[in-house]
Amino acid sequence: MVHKLSAEFFGTFWLVFGGCGSAVLAASFPELGIGFAGVSLAFGLTVLTMAYAVGQISGGHFNPAVTLGLAAAGRIPWSDLPGYWAAQVTGGLVGAIMLYLIASGAPDWTAGGFASNGYGALSPGGYGLMSAFLIEVVLTAAFLIVILGATSARAPLGFAPLAIGLALTLIHLISIPVTNTSVNPARSTAVAFLAETGAVKQLWLFWVAPLLGAALGAVTWNALLSDRKLDTSGPQAATPRHPAE
Amino acid sequence: MVHKLSAEFFGTFWLVFGGCGSAVLAASFPELGIGFAGVSLAFGLTVLTMAYAVGQISGGHFNPAVTLGLAAAGRIPWSDLPGYWAAQVTGGLVGAIMLYLIASGAPDWTAGGFASNGYGALSPGGYGLMSAFLIEVVLTAAFLIVILGATSARAPLGFAPLAIGLALTLIHLISIPVTNTSVNPARSTAVAFLAETGAVKQLWLFWVAPLLGAALGAVTWNALLSDRKLDTSGPQAATPRHPAE
Amino acid sequence: MVHKLSAEFFGTFWLVFGGCGSAVLAASFPELGIGFAGVSLAFGLTVLTMAYAVGQISGGHFNPAVTLGLAAAGRIPWSDLPGYWAAQVTGGLVGAIMLYLIASGAPDWTAGGFASNGYGALSPGGYGLMSAFLIEVVLTAAFLIVILGATSARAPLGFAPLAIGLALTLIHLISIPVTNTSVNPARSTAVAFLAETGAVKQLWLFWVAPLLGAALGAVTWNALLSDRKLDTSGPQAATPRHPAE
Amino acid sequence: MVHKLSAEFFGTFWLVFGGCGSAVLAASFPELGIGFAGVSLAFGLTVLTMAYAVGQISGGHFNPAVTLGLAAAGRIPWSDLPGYWAAQVTGGLVGAIMLYLIASGAPDWTAGGFASNGYGALSPGGYGLMSAFLIEVVLTAAFLIVILGATSARAPLGFAPLAIGLALTLIHLISIPVTNTSVNPARSTAVAFLAETGAVKQLWLFWVAPLLGAALGAVTWNALLSDRKLDTSGPQAATPRHPAE
Repeated sequence: MVHKLSAEFFGTFWLVFGGCGSAVLAASFPELGIGFAGVSLAFGLTVLTMAYAVGQISGGHFNPAVTLGLAAAGRIPWSDLPGYWAAQVTGGLVGAIMLYLIASGAPDWTAGGFASNGYGALSPGGYGLMSAFLIEVVLTAAFLIVILGATSARAPLGFAPLAIGLALTLIHLISIPVTNTSVNPARSTAVAFLAETGAVKQLWLFWVAPLLGAALGAVTWNALLSDRKLDTSGPQAATPRHPAE
Repeated sequence: MVHKLSAEFFGTFWLVFGGCGSAVLAASFPELGIGFAGVSLAFGLTVLTMAYAVGQISGGHFNPAVTLGLAAAGRIPWSDLPGYWAAQVTGGLVGAIMLYLIASGAPDWTAGGFASNGYGALSPGGYGLMSAFLIEVVLTAAFLIVILGATSARAPLGFAPLAIGLALTLIHLISIPVTNTSVNPARSTAVAFLAETGAVKQLWLFWVAPLLGAALGAVTWNALLSDRKLDTSGPQAATPRHPAE
Repeated sequence: MVHKLSAEFFGTFWLVFGGCGSAVLAASFPELGIGFAGVSLAFGLTVLTMAYAVGQISGGHFNPAVTLGLAAAGRIPWSDLPGYWAAQVTGGLVGAIMLYLIASGAPDWTAGGFASNGYGALSPGGYGLMSAFLIEVVLTAAFLIVILGATSARAPLGFAPLAIGLALTLIHLISIPVTNTSVNPARSTAVAFLAETGAVKQLWLFWVAPLLGAALGAVTWNALLSDRKLDTSGPQAATPRHPAE
Repeated sequence: MVHKLSAEFFGTFWLVFGGCGSAVLAASFPELGIGFAGVSLAFGLTVLTMAYAVGQISGGHFNPAVTLGLAAAGRIPWSDLPGYWAAQVTGGLVGAIMLYLIASGAPDWTAGGFASNGYGALSPGGYGLMSAFLIEVVLTAAFLIVILGATSARAPLGFAPLAIGLALTLIHLISIPVTNTSVNPARSTAVAFLAETGAVKQLWLFWVAPLLGAALGAVTWNALLSDRKLDTSGPQAATPRHPAE
């Protein structure tokens, strides 16, 4: 279990440090900045790279909503959830603090939103609460369907980290203007406390909507898409498998 | 069959919600918007991700033209076509409506073209009917050649969703300025009815040209490229195969 | 051999239609255009997608310099070269003509450079003959090393089209400003005759430099990198192999 | 050993010529330039492509910090280090000189920073020494965790070059504004001597921080993530393996 929680800690550290780091440090650099598309790619690549690196250890969730969805789908035992959530939130917070230390070394820097999530006045495009809630639910549900499908027993071997990481890139390409994209309560929590805006007051939404969406995705998968005989074979189904195992 | 139609429903939902969503919500965001390149990546990733997730269930078409082409090539029975088309069109429509609900939560929002396809006055670059027709035929034909080739018995295992998804990205990189890129009648239908322009009047082209192109691609494949002994082994050839099967 | 030449014809058609098409139609679209990065991605994806589709038929060269390099390295018989070159040049020309027909459907369109290659006054960044010559030689040599390595007997199965396609993306990310990027005489020839600039007069360079670079890459591979016992096993080594074969 | 050192020479040549080349030649091209996102993709693709091509020969390090980290983790013998470092630094220098020759063929060209790394006045965004030091340590440590994980015995076969190359893309998406991104002393050394700024005076940091980070990543992997029974099976564990071996 130490290995598993270390893997989730470092993976979520990487997701927050890398994904939010690209947003804070590089998105708006004059003329040459990477924009929303570059940030989308960065978030996806944090998951793609760490899932190939440590996915075989912990399953590579890096996200409390994913852990909840996998438990709801019967892929991991519910007893794994508290430890995973603690490792994810802690890893994310350490990543955000490290990013803060580095970012504050620029001349005339202020934290501002610090890549936090929000709706209404804190939405990049000014989208309201209902839009924010809906898009976080829909995207997290679809994310879980991709995760459950790509790690199912019938899916081709070894491609799950690619599909899942690029799904996160896609999710960001769609929704940064609406909520700055969460689908991950650990990522939202990590930066909310460092933002100078009122992001903490809106943090509840980025727990409620992703968790609800993940549960919805898991139920949808089990009801309409899963061939139970193949897929509910236990936690190891959620990890890339090695032919030699 | 319920599993197959569910897979096509959710896959086409994802294609329209994600692909058109990136265009409607994020393409033109001031300074940081993702542009045509980001939208191209998003459309491709909808197919890449859902094909890894549910491709092993339904073949992962998410597109009436693809279903027609696979039937014309002898990969799936013609009797699958009506159900697949119905699931695809329905999934696309639900995706477009969900997107509309979310997008309308921005201040001062109007639907405008709502990522619909068009020619002449409705072409992003003002391209005429003949250009629009030709490019949709050529691109859908090439798309089918990629699909038939990447899922043929001699192709390397597991890479088909990658090749097919990135083919859709490439198709968008080329043709968004001409028709806003269809190659998919379900995608065009889904948003045409929500656009405030006259997109519905031009919708016929985005059924005729992609279907014609898909048939052309299938015939070309069978005539010039296929080794019939290997490739016409039935519907399962169109899905990523599991070594253990 | 009909299958092989058809594969090379369609692959090179796709490379020119898609790669040059993205440059002509989408690169400079106001505000939302895909820029050099999008064109780079498009060129790479033409090869990635068609190599997965028809690479197992012809080896997936789509480029006279690649065919020369593979012959020089002993991977294919020299007798394949004339047919391959003819199919590649013809496929490229048909692709360029089809693109011309479509592109000319825009209001006030002129062909201009039509994505042709050049140096001096015809270099996008005004680079001189020596820079153009050097970069085309170096990049084609490196391209051949990637191709020979990724298709060698020791490389992991199935990844060659990914590595080779993305190598072409990388090559374009580096060199569009210098020569508009050739490394492929068929691609240069296809559009040179349709350009309104004097691109035809400079076409010799985009045969000489890529062919020289390809030969240099092949010699370098065989001299310094290849384990001859494994790699010189004949033409099939250049194609993605199927585990069941 | 000649094969191994040749592989490291050409791989590091490619990393510097391609990665720094995209920065020098294409990043700031008016209107159509590839920006930091394009440069990030280019750096990652140099490693992805050469790791598929020659990774099975030398392990595909192309970076003295990676070689140090793999030795520290017990994956390669310490005796490999001097030869690898020499080949990497030499290959990088030759790549930088070749790039200089080509780049200087543009009208009114000056070398300027020539894609060198720096902090303070030489940081693209003006970040100070502490920020530069911290981010180089953190990113190199994470890079080593990705490398050690993706090449461990339990990781899926053949995907390591993809994960490692895209990790380098991600690293650049985050940190170009801070240090212009090193994580690789050979890359920093190669261009420092050609820059017209005082980059050479700051070169020490881009040896110290990446080497320290790599050691930290290796120790972290071995202490918290590695299953020693599976992973410390010797140098071949660091290379993509062929099923037939």
